[in-house]
Amino acid sequence: MDAVFTTPATDRYFEDYQVGATYQLGSVTVSQDEIIAFARLYDPQEMHINPTLAAQGPFGEVIASGWHTIALTMRKLVDNFLPHNGLAAPGIDEVRWPRPVRPGDTLSVRVTIEQARRSRSKPDRGLIHTLVETVNQDGDVVMSLRPMNLVRCRNPQA
Amino acid sequence: MDAVFTTPATDRYFEDYQVGATYQLGSVTVSQDEIIAFARLYDPQEMHINPTLAAQGPFGEVIASGWHTIALTMRKLVDNFLPHNGLAAPGIDEVRWPRPVRPGDTLSVRVTIEQARRSRSKPDRGLIHTLVETVNQDGDVVMSLRPMNLVRCRNPQA
Repeated sequence: MDAVFTTPATDRYFEDYQVGATYQLGSVTVSQDEIIAFARLYDPQEMHINPTLAAQGPFGEVIASGWHTIALTMRKLVDNFLPHNGLAAPGIDEVRWPRPVRPGDTLSVRVTIEQARRSRSKPDRGLIHTLVETVNQDGDVVMSLRPMNLVRCRNPQA
Repeated sequence: MDAVFTTPATDRYFEDYQVGATYQLGSVTVSQDEIIAFARLYDPQEMHINPTLAAQGPFGEVIASGWHTIALTMRKLVDNFLPHNGLAAPGIDEVRWPRPVRPGDTLSVRVTIEQARRSRSKPDRGLIHTLVETVNQDGDVVMSLRPMNLVRCRNPQA
């Protein structure tokens, strides 16, 4: 079930996240120059930065660092899903990169809410478990992760 | 047990990774400017980019995006642990950010090999499961993750 938020990020709280719903967060196209620039800084493996060597490798061209794919995905989560002025996230259960991201790919991000529960120890917040999937222009999932996010409650006393 | 590699990254294979050994990968200091610059691109939450608002928040100052901490950690893995011209990693089991990373923190990275096994289907490679921990100058773990890495074997026929 696709869902949209009825409130802007500045007025978005735990109560607004619907368990079972899927939110579409938009898309981004990644160029070879961007792939190489990110990887030179943070993940300078040959498969990400060296077009000549990568051309002889299993993918035939450079592919994006998996962390670059996640960084582009995170930007969509911040812009189109998380509340403004949110809380720090405790962690992620499971990251997968089932397919490579290639220069020119257009990546779309969707997020499905798998669980949501109020905190017992801190009743002003709740913990949301999601499945985040990043899909290329052919519909193939290139990255998935299962984050936990802490979100403030609109009604801490409820 | 701390261990060091006896071969350079250009001559490093599955057989060189010792189960149970811990490798120290060096350290990096992160500035507030770097924290803000990374987050503006990939994780523009107020707690990472807005010193004024962050000063009133739970941490009293901006803290690094958890993805920035991982990106800095990944650089150490590429420079000091992974083989040159490696293979794509299938994923991560579990990411945790137990404490914030603050401007001026010096982060040290260590990696412990928890499991290593030859691939049955592709005998030219092996799968290594590690625990990667990033620790601040006070000895506190600020990030941990459990990646899987595919590494080529020196002796594919062994």
